[in-house]
Amino acid sequence: MMNIQKLIDLLKSGKKKYISRAISLVENEDPIAIELLKNIHKTVGKAYRIGITGPPGAGKSTITNELTKLLLQKNKSVGIIAIDPTSPFTGGAVLGDRIRMNEIGLNENVFIRSMATRGSLGGLSRKTIDAADVIDSANFDYIIFETVGVGQSELDIAKTADTTLVALVPESGDSVQAMKAGLMEIADFFVMNKSDRPGADTAILSLQTTLMLKDHDENTYLPKVLKSVASEGRGIEEILEEVEAHRKYIEESVVFTQRRKRINKIRIKEIVENFVSNDIWNDDRKEILSKELELITNSDLSPYQSAERIIKHYKEDILYNK
Amino acid sequence: MMNIQKLIDLLKSGKKKYISRAISLVENEDPIAIELLKNIHKTVGKAYRIGITGPPGAGKSTITNELTKLLLQKNKSVGIIAIDPTSPFTGGAVLGDRIRMNEIGLNENVFIRSMATRGSLGGLSRKTIDAADVIDSANFDYIIFETVGVGQSELDIAKTADTTLVALVPESGDSVQAMKAGLMEIADFFVMNKSDRPGADTAILSLQTTLMLKDHDENTYLPKVLKSVASEGRGIEEILEEVEAHRKYIEESVVFTQRRKRINKIRIKEIVENFVSNDIWNDDRKEILSKELELITNSDLSPYQSAERIIKHYKEDILYNK
Repeated sequence: MMNIQKLIDLLKSGKKKYISRAISLVENEDPIAIELLKNIHKTVGKAYRIGITGPPGAGKSTITNELTKLLLQKNKSVGIIAIDPTSPFTGGAVLGDRIRMNEIGLNENVFIRSMATRGSLGGLSRKTIDAADVIDSANFDYIIFETVGVGQSELDIAKTADTTLVALVPESGDSVQAMKAGLMEIADFFVMNKSDRPGADTAILSLQTTLMLKDHDENTYLPKVLKSVASEGRGIEEILEEVEAHRKYIEESVVFTQRRKRINKIRIKEIVENFVSNDIWNDDRKEILSKELELITNSDLSPYQSAERIIKHYKEDILYNK
Repeated sequence: MMNIQKLIDLLKSGKKKYISRAISLVENEDPIAIELLKNIHKTVGKAYRIGITGPPGAGKSTITNELTKLLLQKNKSVGIIAIDPTSPFTGGAVLGDRIRMNEIGLNENVFIRSMATRGSLGGLSRKTIDAADVIDSANFDYIIFETVGVGQSELDIAKTADTTLVALVPESGDSVQAMKAGLMEIADFFVMNKSDRPGADTAILSLQTTLMLKDHDENTYLPKVLKSVASEGRGIEEILEEVEAHRKYIEESVVFTQRRKRINKIRIKEIVENFVSNDIWNDDRKEILSKELELITNSDLSPYQSAERIIKHYKEDILYNK
């Protein structure tokens, strides 16, 4: 416990190297990370969390960078967590980091961390929220989650933000595409980026029409559709204004408690399933899995039969260890 | 077991209503579905499985439809499994179904099923492969998986195909974006769709350059980059030729066995984790979760403490039931 308190004190100093070290503990599922997270839990929740999501190529990174610059001008500190669905081969997360570091990353009030979806252990959204808690405990004002908003796990991460912005471009296709991508239900507002391109107004109109068709009453916060040309810094002020307007709305309503409860639910479920999964796939069961794969390849056995044997072995382990 | 054999016989008739019924059993995690899957396992593997993936708006549905039409002309039967990362509110999967049904769905040699990512039980890629096994056992020649290729679970599905085609459009952005989306490692070949648009040649060149930079030797099947304008039926013949060329390549090499082994590994892992997860989240534990959420909201407890209590309860359950 001595170490934990020391780590918490170091985090509170806001120094990037300690934040970075603590997040690495989280990523590597180090037991000390869990102790840390339990201990900082009561102090987190001060940083306002913004989700920026949308299809590839919508300019999410540019919006994140420009919004960060604007927040810096207002003397705010910003933590950025970028989720890269990167292949093990590209190392894209590292590449993304380097490009950003030149622009805003050297500022002492900006902390940037890329988290790759590589590695099959899963638990990405758990680790992302845990990393945000770490940054939060280092007294940052804002945390931005930047994710590609198409996969289910990426959407789950966006859902954990207090305000979620969905970036689109005129080429993102009509509103049916937007719906298909599951972005409609998570957007607190939309940003039509690259809005100087042809088709922007039509795309906005189509999106607005779709939004009006969605069930709503006088209490619904109907998502606005803003315009931006983020690469030229245009529309960024308006984005921040809308973030603050939405923040005011949720902080004054029951939505805030509901959101935090929903996030806790996602977290608990993920923690339970990750812990159990790690328990299952210990070295013993990994070896059994390899043997089962050979068996299946050389026979007519079904994966279901193999799975049942592995589960049986796991449960027997629990029985013997008690 | 009587029922199972009857179900298998009905499936072998190839009638759509029986395939549909069997897939519903799979989707609903009906115990009879597992018996069915164990029993058909030794007869599946005849249908060739094609993955079609790519970012939203790349024209995956159009390519799927046109490729299906071409296969029908060659007297082949086609099962299509479309994965829609759809929100519960849009019902997009149903919408997608209806649009297709008019075009090719009424043909008796085409079976179409949309599987939505909605619902939090997970297990999507397991259910998708199970559904493919059902279609396979009904003696279809080809099965096409159509998924949005950005999220991790969607990529996992694409990985289970024998040949995976990644569709892009000139606007999909440069090769860095393609890498970021994790599509590079799963593509057996690329299709630059809407290749009559400006920027197509530049995009192809950029993609080819990136592909050449990837580690490869004389044994690597270097992904080709084809062109298409699927909405006009252009480039579809070439796509099918490349599918067959890749098929020939993998069937003559060790890759085939490796792929099937990798698929089995994914399946077994998913089956194990889904079964255990269902076991964990029974009514008792769902109730505990609700209570824990109230506790957390009104105190400084961390989700990690709640998760630990739920896991303890689960393990005690295993002990008592023995």
